[in-house]
Order: sequence, then C-alpha cells, then structure tokens
Amino acid sequence: MKIKVGIIGATGYAGAELVRLLSAHPEAELVALTTQSYGGKSFCEVYPHLYKYVDQKCCELDIPDLVGKADVIFAALPHGHAIPVAREVLKQGKKFIDLGADFRFDRREVYEQWYKVEHTAPDLLEQKVYGLPEVYREKIKSASLVGNPGCYPTSVILGLAPLLKHGLVDTGTVVADSKSGVSGAGRGLSLGNHFCEVNENFRAYNVGMHRHTPEIEQELGKLAGEEMVISFTPHLTPMNRGILSTVYAKLKQEMTLGQVRSIYEEYYRSEFFVRLLPPGILPQTKAVAGSNHCDVVPVVDPRTGRVVVISAIDNLIKGAAGQAVQNMNLMFGLPEITGLNRPGLYP
Amino acid sequence: MKIKVGIIGATGYAGAELVRLLSAHPEAELVALTTQSYGGKSFCEVYPHLYKYVDQKCCELDIPDLVGKADVIFAALPHGHAIPVAREVLKQGKKFIDLGADFRFDRREVYEQWYKVEHTAPDLLEQKVYGLPEVYREKIKSASLVGNPGCYPTSVILGLAPLLKHGLVDTGTVVADSKSGVSGAGRGLSLGNHFCEVNENFRAYNVGMHRHTPEIEQELGKLAGEEMVISFTPHLTPMNRGILSTVYAKLKQEMTLGQVRSIYEEYYRSEFFVRLLPPGILPQTKAVAGSNHCDVVPVVDPRTGRVVVISAIDNLIKGAAGQAVQNMNLMFGLPEITGLNRPGLYP
Amino acid sequence: MKIKVGIIGATGYAGAELVRLLSAHPEAELVALTTQSYGGKSFCEVYPHLYKYVDQKCCELDIPDLVGKADVIFAALPHGHAIPVAREVLKQGKKFIDLGADFRFDRREVYEQWYKVEHTAPDLLEQKVYGLPEVYREKIKSASLVGNPGCYPTSVILGLAPLLKHGLVDTGTVVADSKSGVSGAGRGLSLGNHFCEVNENFRAYNVGMHRHTPEIEQELGKLAGEEMVISFTPHLTPMNRGILSTVYAKLKQEMTLGQVRSIYEEYYRSEFFVRLLPPGILPQTKAVAGSNHCDVVPVVDPRTGRVVVISAIDNLIKGAAGQAVQNMNLMFGLPEITGLNRPGLYP
Amino acid sequence: MKIKVGIIGATGYAGAELVRLLSAHPEAELVALTTQSYGGKSFCEVYPHLYKYVDQKCCELDIPDLVGKADVIFAALPHGHAIPVAREVLKQGKKFIDLGADFRFDRREVYEQWYKVEHTAPDLLEQKVYGLPEVYREKIKSASLVGNPGCYPTSVILGLAPLLKHGLVDTGTVVADSKSGVSGAGRGLSLGNHFCEVNENFRAYNVGMHRHTPEIEQELGKLAGEEMVISFTPHLTPMNRGILSTVYAKLKQEMTLGQVRSIYEEYYRSEFFVRLLPPGILPQTKAVAGSNHCDVVPVVDPRTGRVVVISAIDNLIKGAAGQAVQNMNLMFGLPEITGLNRPGLYP
Repeated sequence: MKIKVGIIGATGYAGAELVRLLSAHPEAELVALTTQSYGGKSFCEVYPHLYKYVDQKCCELDIPDLVGKADVIFAALPHGHAIPVAREVLKQGKKFIDLGADFRFDRREVYEQWYKVEHTAPDLLEQKVYGLPEVYREKIKSASLVGNPGCYPTSVILGLAPLLKHGLVDTGTVVADSKSGVSGAGRGLSLGNHFCEVNENFRAYNVGMHRHTPEIEQELGKLAGEEMVISFTPHLTPMNRGILSTVYAKLKQEMTLGQVRSIYEEYYRSEFFVRLLPPGILPQTKAVAGSNHCDVVPVVDPRTGRVVVISAIDNLIKGAAGQAVQNMNLMFGLPEITGLNRPGLYP
Repeated sequence: MKIKVGIIGATGYAGAELVRLLSAHPEAELVALTTQSYGGKSFCEVYPHLYKYVDQKCCELDIPDLVGKADVIFAALPHGHAIPVAREVLKQGKKFIDLGADFRFDRREVYEQWYKVEHTAPDLLEQKVYGLPEVYREKIKSASLVGNPGCYPTSVILGLAPLLKHGLVDTGTVVADSKSGVSGAGRGLSLGNHFCEVNENFRAYNVGMHRHTPEIEQELGKLAGEEMVISFTPHLTPMNRGILSTVYAKLKQEMTLGQVRSIYEEYYRSEFFVRLLPPGILPQTKAVAGSNHCDVVPVVDPRTGRVVVISAIDNLIKGAAGQAVQNMNLMFGLPEITGLNRPGLYP
Repeated sequence: MKIKVGIIGATGYAGAELVRLLSAHPEAELVALTTQSYGGKSFCEVYPHLYKYVDQKCCELDIPDLVGKADVIFAALPHGHAIPVAREVLKQGKKFIDLGADFRFDRREVYEQWYKVEHTAPDLLEQKVYGLPEVYREKIKSASLVGNPGCYPTSVILGLAPLLKHGLVDTGTVVADSKSGVSGAGRGLSLGNHFCEVNENFRAYNVGMHRHTPEIEQELGKLAGEEMVISFTPHLTPMNRGILSTVYAKLKQEMTLGQVRSIYEEYYRSEFFVRLLPPGILPQTKAVAGSNHCDVVPVVDPRTGRVVVISAIDNLIKGAAGQAVQNMNLMFGLPEITGLNRPGLYP
Repeated sequence: MKIKVGIIGATGYAGAELVRLLSAHPEAELVALTTQSYGGKSFCEVYPHLYKYVDQKCCELDIPDLVGKADVIFAALPHGHAIPVAREVLKQGKKFIDLGADFRFDRREVYEQWYKVEHTAPDLLEQKVYGLPEVYREKIKSASLVGNPGCYPTSVILGLAPLLKHGLVDTGTVVADSKSGVSGAGRGLSLGNHFCEVNENFRAYNVGMHRHTPEIEQELGKLAGEEMVISFTPHLTPMNRGILSTVYAKLKQEMTLGQVRSIYEEYYRSEFFVRLLPPGILPQTKAVAGSNHCDVVPVVDPRTGRVVVISAIDNLIKGAAGQAVQNMNLMFGLPEITGLNRPGLYP
C-alpha cells in the first residue's frame, strides 16, 4: 500500500517540486493538491511540464478533510499558516512535514523576534524535529512533526557541521556569504522577481537581518556546543535554481588541507546526498541543480588561518522539496534515497 | 541480462546526456565511454553532476574492441566519422545508433551537396532507418543501423506531420522559423558560444543554408508524397536547452481550429512523447526541458489562411540523446518509454 | 532656450528611457515626470542608475498644468489614455508624441477592432503623423501630434520598406517572425514576466492576434500601394532588450543578392540610424542594444525564391524612447541625431 | 588639438570599451588600434555595435611606431607584456596607462610571487602611480606611468577606504567576497566561458589564491597604515557586466549606522563617480552597468559588531576602461569626468 500524500500550497515552486518528485515516487500516491489561487483548475494547466504525469485538479484547503485522506501532509505555506494544520495532523495521528518556518525553532522567542508574530503553538516546538537528516536522522525516523530546514541554512549547516562538531573553528569568526537563484523567492509576483530587474543584475538583500540567520545560528550552535552569532548575507543571482554558500571561519589551530578533508570524509562517509568533491574540483550550482545533492569542499588558506567552505545545493530540492521527501522516507521506514536517486541536468 | 552499451563521443553534451539517461536505464549497462579529449580521466571529473552515478573512466576509441564489447553503439561525432563505426558494427552483427548526419539521408547526393564531403558508404544509406519513432516505428524495431534525426528536423517534422500526411497544406508555402538554445552547438569552444556573446543577444545564423534544411525537406516530402522545398531559419537563443519551431503553411482549403486539432489528436493519440496541448496553452521550451517530450499546438489564422504550428523540444533529449534511447528501446523490444518516462524540471 | 519636456508615465521602462535620453540631451530640459505609482518619490529612488543625473521628483498627473509648463509632452501610457492629453496639448498649441497606440492608425475601425475599445477622437487621427522618420520625415517636421510606432512594427517596416517601395515582393506571402526581449512588456507585474518563468524559456504568444499586426499591415500596405495581410508571430526571449525580426517574402522575380542589396543601399543611404551591415554579417540584438540603430540585412534564397530580411533594434530605444526623441528633434528643427548619436554597449 | 591615443590590445573586451569611450571623448582622437588576432580587419567587423562610430582598421603592434604617433598609450595585455611598451613610452616622453598588472605593485617580490614571473623593470615600479583617482588623484595628475587598478581591487578598496583611513576596523578580520560578471575573464575562449557552462550556474574560483589579493592588500594596507592580510574569494556570476563586493570587517568599537555613514559621506563628498546611496537602498550591479560609477553602502550589524560594505561597479568601466580614461583626463589636465558623465543602461 502506498503512502497517501496531501500537499498544501502545491502550486508554488516548492509545492510543484513536491508534486513532481512524489508523482514519480514508487511508494507514494498523491491524494490532494491544495492551492489558494487555482482551485478547480487542472494541475497541469498551472505546470504544463507535468502533462501525462499528474492528472489531478487543484482543490481548496479543507484541513480536517485533507488530513483525513492522507498519511502524511506536506505544507509549503507562509509562516504562521502551518500551525493549525499541525494541530489537526497530530490530532488525527498522521505525519506532518512543514516546509515553512513554523517548526524550525527550539525557542519561540527567537521565532517571534525575527518573524514578528506570536507563535501560537509553543508546545509543538518541543515535539518537532528539525528535518536535516544528515544531523537528526534517528530523531526524524520516529517524528510526527518535522520542520523542514530553510534553503540557506541547509547549505551553510552542511558546509560547517564537520568542523563545528570537532570544535575546530573559532565560532565568533563565522561569516556566511550565500548566493541564491530566484526560485527561492517563490512564484509570487514582486518587482524584485521581474525578469528585467534580475537579469544582468546581482545584489545583496536583507543584509544582517535575513530570517534564516537565527535558524543557522541555532543549528550551528548545537553542533558546536555553544551559542553562536554569525554574519549572514544573502544575495540574488540571475538564475533559476541553486544556492552557493561561501563560509569563512578562523581555524583554532593550524591545519593542513589534508587534515580538514579527512574530517569531512569521515563525517560524510555514509551520506549519499552530501558529496565531498575530490581535491581540485569546487562545488558549482549547476552540478547539483535538479538533484537532492549538497556538494561540499573545504579550502584551507594558510595565509589567513581561515578555512573557506564552499557548498552548493538546488534550493528547491535539497533546500526544500527533496529534503522533505528524504524526511518522509525516513519517517515511513523507506530507504532514504527512494525517489531521489537521480542526478541533475547538465548543462 | 542488460543491454551492453558503448558510447562514442561521450563527453560532448549529447554524449553526456546519453550517459546520464543510460546510467539510470533499468535495462542498460554502460560498457565504454570513449572520448577524444579526456582519455583516462574519470567521467565525473568532466561532468561533476554524475558523481555517485557514473564511476567509469573515459577511454580512447578502438572501434573493433568497442564493438566487440557492446550490444549497441551510440555515436555522437562530427559528420563523416560514423561511417567506419557503422561498417564494423554491421560486420560484428551489433546495432548502431548514429546521432550525427551520416545516416539520415536517402540520397548520397543530397548529403554530399550540403555537407561538402563524399559519402563513402552509400550502400549503408539503403539499410539505414531514419530514427523518428513517431513516423518509422515499425522499421526501427528491426533496424540495425539508425540515423538519429537532427534536433531542428525533429521539431519541424513532428509539427507538420499530421497536416502533410493528410495533404492539407500547400507544400510550396512552408516556412520554418526555429530558435535553439546554445547546447545544440556542442561543448566545443568558439566565439559564438562565449557567454558574453550569447547572453543578452538573439541572432539568426546560416540563413537559407543550414544543413538541417535538406533533412527536413526529405522527411516532409515523404510525408506529403511530393518533393518539398522550404525556407528554414535557425536562431540562437540565450538559454541552454530547448528548441521552439514556429512553422507557417497555407491551408489548401479553409479549416476551423477544431478540424485541425482533430487531425493532430488522431495522429498523435497513442504517442506518449508527443503532447498536443489543450486549447489556449502554447508550447514553451521550459515545459519540455529535461524530458523526451515534444509539445505541439497548431493555430489556425483565418485572416491569412495559414496554419501556424508551434512545437517545442529539449534539443539534447528528444532532439538527440532521448530520441536515441527511444530508438534503442524499440530496437531491443523494450517498452518504448523505458528510462524516459520522466517529466522535465520547471522552473 | 531649451525645449521644455514633460513625460507622462515616466516610471515605466519606456518612460525611464525617455528620462535617461532627455536628461543628457543638450537641447532639452525635463520639467515634469508624472507617474501613477510613485508620486512624491524621488525619480532616482525608482531608478537608481540615474543618481547624480536626475534630481527631480515624480509627480501625479494634472494634464492642463503639465501641458502649460511644457513645450512638448511625451506619453507612455496604456492605450486609450493619451486621447485627453492630446486634446489639451493641441488646445494649448504644444506638441505631443504618444508612445502608445492611440495615434498610430489611419482608420478608427482598425483600432477599435483590435484594441476592443471605442476611439473617442477620430478627428485627431487625421492630424496625427505616424512617427517613423525614415518614412515620414517631412510630415513629422511640421506635425503637432505624432503617434510613435510600436516596437515590432518599427523592426518589420524598416526591414521590408525598400522591397515594398519598389514593388519587388508578392505581398500575400509575407511572414514576420519576431523575437523580443522582456522589457517590451513593461515593468508591470505578471506571471509572464517573473524571472523564473522567462529565464531558460522561449515561447510564442498571441499567435495570429497581436495588436501590432494591423499597424504593420497599415504601414507595409502604404509602402506597397496595396492592402496587405501578413502573418505576424511575436515571441518572448530570455533577455532584457532587443527585437530581432525575421521576415520572409516571395520575390516577384528572380533577383541576385547584389541587386537586392543595392536597393537597400540606395533606400537607406542617408539614414544614420538604419545600418545595412556589410555582406557576411547578420544583425544581432546585442549590436544595437543601448542605441537608436536598426540593423538590417536582406538575404536572397534562390532555392525558395524568397528574400529573408533580418532586422534588429533595441525595443526601448529605436522601438520606443529613442525614436520618440528622434521625432522631437525633427519637430523642433534640431539635427535628427541630437542626443542619440551613441553606440550601444557590447557585450 | 586633441589627445592622440593609441590602444594596444584593442579587440579584447576592455580594449573595445576603451575604443567605445574614447571614440565619443571630445578631447581624444584614436590614432591606432592594435590587436594580435585581427590585424587588417576593420574594427567594426570585430565589434559591429561600432558601425558608423569607428572606421579604423585593426593593425599589428609596432611599439616604437605606435608610441611615436600617440600622446598616450593604453595597453590591455596579459601581464608581462606591458613592460617593453612602458620603456619605449618613457623614452619618447609620452604617457602610458597599463590596464594589466605590470605596474600595480610597489614591491617586485609580491608581483613575482603571485604572478610567477620575474619582473624585468623594477625601476619602473618606483615611477608608476596606482591609478585609483579617488585615492591618488594628485599623483596621477603628474604621472607618466599609471598602473590601472584591477576590477576586484577597485570595488573592494573603494568600499573600505573610508573606514581604514580612519582606523575604525580590526584589519585582521577583513573578508572580501566578490562576484563578477563573465566579461572580466576577457574574450578569449575557455570552457569556463562557454555559455552553457556559465548560464544557470554560480561558482567560486581561485579560492584563497586569486592574483588580485595582494593588490587589494597592498592598497588597503597603505590606507590603514599597517600590513594587511585578507580573505578574498572571487565568484563567477551568469551575467556579462558587473562586480558586487560584500566586504566584512569587525569594528574596533561600537558605532551607529549614522556615524559610519557620516564617515563615508565626508570621504566621498566631492567624488562624482563614487555614489553613497541613500539609506535603505543597496548597490546592485545593474545600477552601475554601462557607467563609470562605484555605488557604495555600509551596513552596521550590531549583533556581530561587524560592518558589511556593499560596493558595485561595472568591471569593464570603473573596473577597467572607464577608470583608465578617468586617469587620462587627470594626466592631461582635463575635467575628470570628460567623456564619462553618462549613466548606465537600466534595465
């Protein structure tokens, strides 16, 4: 029997990636695609690449009904909107994977400070598991409520985890400079997404105040075993998919590249989705676009005593829908790579 | 037992797509990847998106050895170079799918006139089958030598086939205006492929003299049952993948859109890869990029008495590697969609 | 004394190009920049490339006041909105250059049929001059009301004018296949302008029913001296600026390339902005982007008896703001190239 | 009498920008355009945007002859090649502006260590002036030999200069993360510049070992009055023009944004080309593309105690040809903005 899946917010870019991945997933069956804007329309009219693959209609959200029909619910919604869904899912004993920010934080105060709204379900924050399988795999397996990580945090945390876990860097020196494709901002319309404003343009935004900052700090801090405060700057890149993060940190002591690479090799030895590239090859977004991989390479700069880690993901896959499916696989006892073991497209 | 596959010219873009598709094909096994430039190098170093999927090395071409090892050979080579391969393949009783131009033409004179070289194996032109499954499916099933169609011809022929087969257009009025992404020109270096020369640029090239012209004319002519001479203009578009063809022809008699659509519906009813989009939706390259589909829509313009057909393909897949795999499936008695039943990526 | 200029709709892309061109024009002085969306805001906050060049604020439109202050008014407005402005301009004895469609047509019926609204000032259609200087230079010099041509029409008409003027093509065989950058659709938000929907995509739109069709037909017909009906298909290209038109027509009689080129040479001999490129070089949008030029090259295809004309413009300059300034220069007795004699940027 | 200008390496991208800017410069006259690849060809055939603006032919380089004809020579050559030109220029008492790296360093050892070649004219390093007018204006006025800054250094140095000059940051904490368009790599062919490899891709390169690092360190160090070692990472962005640098540094003491902005305002008060954007607006490459401006904005992050400076330039103009013309203007006693007072193109 296949896993019955309901997707809330199916017609955004992350939602549509969930539909694409799950429609080809051998153990999943889509039972409901809800959307705010396209109720009643065929999903393929909204996303014509899926003709002959998805024949369902978009429907409007009725939470209890949807939860009743599904074994697992994915939500790709603006923050705040996932909380009532989570309540119902838990009441009915189903599973919930939230691609938004409502279940990523351990402390409601942090969420409330950065997202500027009250968190109305602080009790659930204790039940939730942060859905980064490479760090929380065992907890995810038995979780009912998973907060799927943000796209930037995924790239930065996977980039630094081995070093922090081993206590090798001065935690006060971390600078994460990230560059994202435009699909990260979703399919909603804004001047900032207008083709002519983005094309042939590169810019930073939300310098020092992006909401992924505290999420990154929370997870880096847990890996390091101490509070961390970092500089994080997101940038908008004229491309559709991909995040590349360049992360800088001072090494506590001199280390060779070989020593640092050994740490990464060991840490990621049994991970399929994280790829430590061979010496001399650096991550690039094109090599992961269309796949659930995170490519990582640390570089040691003896002149400055810093390690510079480059990591790359597809923001819609490892940074959103693919990671969510990876979490579903874990939560349902499936092999983790089910439905995700495909390389991306190049070029 | 899996089909043993050898690929000649594996490190060009079409070759790399063959590697990607066949490495995930449930009935195929890659036994040799030959290349001129990267002999001895790991294939993944040349194409890093395939880390963890392909672990073979590139090797240099030894034709008899390669043919000995493989059940089927694909070649993605400049014209002229496939002929000695074909000889050896047929001698050893294997199968050959050529992605170049050497086995596309019925008449050597046409090839020689447009490609400016002698065709040294005219006898093989009689054995070859033109590898467009939607037109030559039965012949392909029993063929040993398949000339895989050019990318532009695939889009134009599939766009016009239903109308020509029914004799509905004035064959002297056909104008095919095609727009291609840059990967169609291959991975070789030239000023015309330099990022800065292509980006933020749009241009026509080889006006009235592109080598795909006689290939299109040959196949359209056979469908129509009469010699055809058409205007064909290729254009270079600042994108990686995709061809969109806009094809104009005068209708012999007045027809409604409904009548024309019925013809297409019937003609493509049982085709998986050709998608006649519903009324009101036009083909776009993004909806097929990453897939083996050809999206087609005819528009009737009563003011001018013309039908305008829009068709879209991914030039590297339905226009090259995907169609070649589709041919392989037919030649080996597999379901035609094996390894190809995936939608593309959007956005 | 400088010409006092008012611009209505200054914060759209065409409006902002007017501001950029006129702020550097040695004989012009901007006296009012009106806008619907940004009233009271500094113009540079809306368009930060103009810091240190334009220090005016955007203001809301008060027609009589604006007309009172200015010698010439430019309007870049949706169709229908320019008519009350024209009335007031003529009443006060000023000059008006409309970048919209309200004053491009000779016959109100054509406008009403294609734009689906009543034309409330048919009397003004008799006074208006179609602002294509290469065709109507003398009339423009004495005009008070100029309908600035559409972007697609500019490229198609300049491409075919020499042939039609000499009666060399079969007027029933004209097919114009045009490809435009995204800025042609303006700065307004729509899913069709979202970066991720356009980037890595190519598509046709409004096949057989784009509103520039009757405008092209009107002007081609006048050049040919007979009614013309053509096929015109616009396409959206993933770039900011530029239109390339590929125009096909049957020659009435056999002609050599040399003969056809002579016709173009003679026709455009004294034009600064139209450039007949030397044999062997084809127009490309990048060679005109940022300039007021239209590059044109005819190709003769003896196989089909067709001439294929390629023409390229910057849709915002020769296709809108630059041509409008060219018209202003003529209307005020200035050298036609004043403020426009700059090449574009490459790459 | 106009300044007679010779350009060596005129057909690269930086060279072609020199040609474009100087052909419109009211006080300059191009007397020779030399090139390695296109000798004898008309310059416009190589760069068709300049038809009707430049009618000269490319010629091969004859150093004494060229220097004899010109008052000032610009060279855009690979490193090492400018030294014999400089010798001849000084011998003949002319002026030389080198866009390469041969005359940027104060100490030959630094050059030799990073560029891996011997510097054969160490005596000239003492005569040379580093051509960053905002820092060395007075020296440039009387210089005969100017080393035009690298593109990345221009953006980083102008971004940090005010803070270093006032001793406000901890010099050991500087991280410069820069992102460049592709034209910075020149018009030469390489797989790294192939459209399909760059488009829809973002990547870092030369991490920790880019040759602009010591140039940045030299100039930052002189501003700070102490040796500096920084982390510098360049990235390749899928666009033609533009560099955006994001520069991080720890403030020595707490400062408000207002205090930091005052420092910048004062430092750049009389600079035309450096624009401190108003609060709330961040630099973006599109706002400077096509112009000689450098847009700068400092952001104070009280959480981390860091200042984050964002700066943007057009790498071919303020990062190369435009700055070179600015230097020429200074060296010949012209107003500094002559021929450069144009905003860029947007969008």
